[in-house]
Amino acid sequence: MIEKVTGRIATDLECLKQYTSTPGEGCTRLPFTKEAREAVDFLKRIMTEAGLEVTEDVAGNVIGILKGEDLEAPCVMMGSHFDSVINGGDFDGIAGIICAIEVARQLKEEGFVPKRNFVVVGFMDEEGLRFGTGYFGSGAILGNRDVEYCRHYKDNDGISIYDAMIEYGLDPERIEEAKWAEGSIGQFLELHIEQGPVLDAEGINLGLVNGIVGIQRYMVTVHGRADHAGTTPMDMRLDAVEAATKVISKIPDWAREKADGTVATTGLIKVTPGGMNIVAEKVDFTVDIRSMNNDNINDIANRIRAALDREMKIMGGSYEIDTKLVITPVFLSEEMLGIMEESCQERGYTYRKLPSGAGHDALEIGQVLPTVMLFTPSKDGRSHCPVEFTKYSDFAKASMVMTDLARNLLGREA
Amino acid sequence: MIEKVTGRIATDLECLKQYTSTPGEGCTRLPFTKEAREAVDFLKRIMTEAGLEVTEDVAGNVIGILKGEDLEAPCVMMGSHFDSVINGGDFDGIAGIICAIEVARQLKEEGFVPKRNFVVVGFMDEEGLRFGTGYFGSGAILGNRDVEYCRHYKDNDGISIYDAMIEYGLDPERIEEAKWAEGSIGQFLELHIEQGPVLDAEGINLGLVNGIVGIQRYMVTVHGRADHAGTTPMDMRLDAVEAATKVISKIPDWAREKADGTVATTGLIKVTPGGMNIVAEKVDFTVDIRSMNNDNINDIANRIRAALDREMKIMGGSYEIDTKLVITPVFLSEEMLGIMEESCQERGYTYRKLPSGAGHDALEIGQVLPTVMLFTPSKDGRSHCPVEFTKYSDFAKASMVMTDLARNLLGREA
Repeated sequence: MIEKVTGRIATDLECLKQYTSTPGEGCTRLPFTKEAREAVDFLKRIMTEAGLEVTEDVAGNVIGILKGEDLEAPCVMMGSHFDSVINGGDFDGIAGIICAIEVARQLKEEGFVPKRNFVVVGFMDEEGLRFGTGYFGSGAILGNRDVEYCRHYKDNDGISIYDAMIEYGLDPERIEEAKWAEGSIGQFLELHIEQGPVLDAEGINLGLVNGIVGIQRYMVTVHGRADHAGTTPMDMRLDAVEAATKVISKIPDWAREKADGTVATTGLIKVTPGGMNIVAEKVDFTVDIRSMNNDNINDIANRIRAALDREMKIMGGSYEIDTKLVITPVFLSEEMLGIMEESCQERGYTYRKLPSGAGHDALEIGQVLPTVMLFTPSKDGRSHCPVEFTKYSDFAKASMVMTDLARNLLGREA
Repeated sequence: MIEKVTGRIATDLECLKQYTSTPGEGCTRLPFTKEAREAVDFLKRIMTEAGLEVTEDVAGNVIGILKGEDLEAPCVMMGSHFDSVINGGDFDGIAGIICAIEVARQLKEEGFVPKRNFVVVGFMDEEGLRFGTGYFGSGAILGNRDVEYCRHYKDNDGISIYDAMIEYGLDPERIEEAKWAEGSIGQFLELHIEQGPVLDAEGINLGLVNGIVGIQRYMVTVHGRADHAGTTPMDMRLDAVEAATKVISKIPDWAREKADGTVATTGLIKVTPGGMNIVAEKVDFTVDIRSMNNDNINDIANRIRAALDREMKIMGGSYEIDTKLVITPVFLSEEMLGIMEESCQERGYTYRKLPSGAGHDALEIGQVLPTVMLFTPSKDGRSHCPVEFTKYSDFAKASMVMTDLARNLLGREA
């Protein structure tokens, strides 16, 4: 069984590798492009072959339905996204759609008759790379996208989502029709690569995702004064680099102290004017804090403010903080996690619970619907790059656990 | 007397303000340009009016000689440079030439007959901004510039010093003729604006420069590993920002500890790839350390290496250090400082001894000849910008102290 499933998943994912605008340099499949269309056409074909009733909605999501006995009952939805970043990997997103189709295949093969619809979905534009947004397709099925939104966001060539949709063959004026009626989706399931090193490093088959971390993201600007690095005594400087690095250097320790998976990162530092022999006038730096415990995020953000206050008192400059993002943690369905845990035990797959440190369609949907995620290991934790890799047999194992979960959910009323 | 001198200096410096390629936006007088030629023509005219015998050498330096009784005896040379940075100030360099001419005027007016030649010089290209070099004219009179040098260095338009010299009307093939014979220069004197805040902050008239600091300049590169800022646990990261900032943040304290004017600066930090949500793969940062005590510079450089070793041990990455500049401190003439000190006391000018934290023509020359410098206050320590300001009466005071020094030196055999 596992060999057959592995083979089917391998075939599908290998075929999908061709739908990239950067052949040989990873997957580049931006939303509303030729490559997206080709991938969707491929997905439609294999969904149809799997016995699903296939449609494409007004947001560009591709949907395949395995019909249940009660067509009106809340469905079980499973899927992920088919777009990618630029020069990304071949599994991020798309593997979750293929495995959802695989779940439908397995249910069909078993001769299982679901009480409710099992809906496989491939979402448009989760990454948000082209238009600086994200979660477009999953947001649309929740009714969170409208015409104004489509007109507002533009890509680097000045093309709006609105125009890109028309070019792609969709009518943006009808975007709100993508919304699913309240109560029509019972549960949402997503399988995704981990995009982190934990499962691979620990040699574990599957990650049962118990939550999606909250995120706070800030741009901090420290204002000092530009001075000649040779002629300005130390006690007459307002050195923005000194003040900023005295804060930045402590942030990782504050995250480590929490010892619960909380992470904090400064990924960007910009020094103005940036001369070897000029005391810095200004330093901009970013802080990205993530945790399942929102208090931890707030605590680190507060410590950063307190440390900046302290350094400004010593240095004499000023600072400002621009809040870029505030997302509270999402806790996933304990009940569904329990079902997956039992499945792993029965099948003899190693697993651990862990939170997702990255955002996913399940983050958008998990805010309002019972949701669960399953992770497969990412080799060396790499993703968003051509070397991104997960063994096909890991996807097969994951699909079988998801089949167990779907069978359980579909075998009863919502 | 002071009013008359102030007036003459003011007139000359006000006239010179017109020779800029950026009128209204500070002085931009790059070497071997129309503005440099115009400034040199002006200097030649006022040197001639002051009774000097005027020539221009093959390096583009302008030279005015007040002849002494013994034409063969080692001369007393005084001067500075007439080029500027881009959008610089109206005093950096050029004020030192005008005050040297003023010294000649004062000696003439007194009817003083020097035993040796008093040589006023305006140097070409001290700033080095156009060709990424520096000390061109002062280097040339010491015999440190040759045709290869002129061919090697090019400006942003690809024009070499060689070609620029031809365009300006000089013959670069003859550059080595600019060298003064060994023993022909007895002493070198330079008056310059402080370019730092010390004199202005302390309300002191003049700075007796007892040395020019040594400089060590490094580019440090810390190699970590790029990782997803959300999905990579703190203990699985090789965060180049954390390691780098833990070192950078300590450097200013190490300089302060010396408590002897030692300064250390990180003016540039570059993070790669520099994404808000990406753990940094690489951080490049600069360190510029300056002190009159070379041991202090070496000690701070060693502490940086030790701290990097320590952080690499914790982090697991690697680093490299590229040495960009090593200059040892230059101590200026105690004897001449003593003569200036007496002059200040007699004239009732407030003064303090201090080192120069910036390089000057006197740094190039001071390595081989008895040299002294005198600083005038820079308002708020600003220089290399249009708001650079020194009171004309401060230049007048400085010229009178320099006249006392020159009279003393020129009144005796070398």
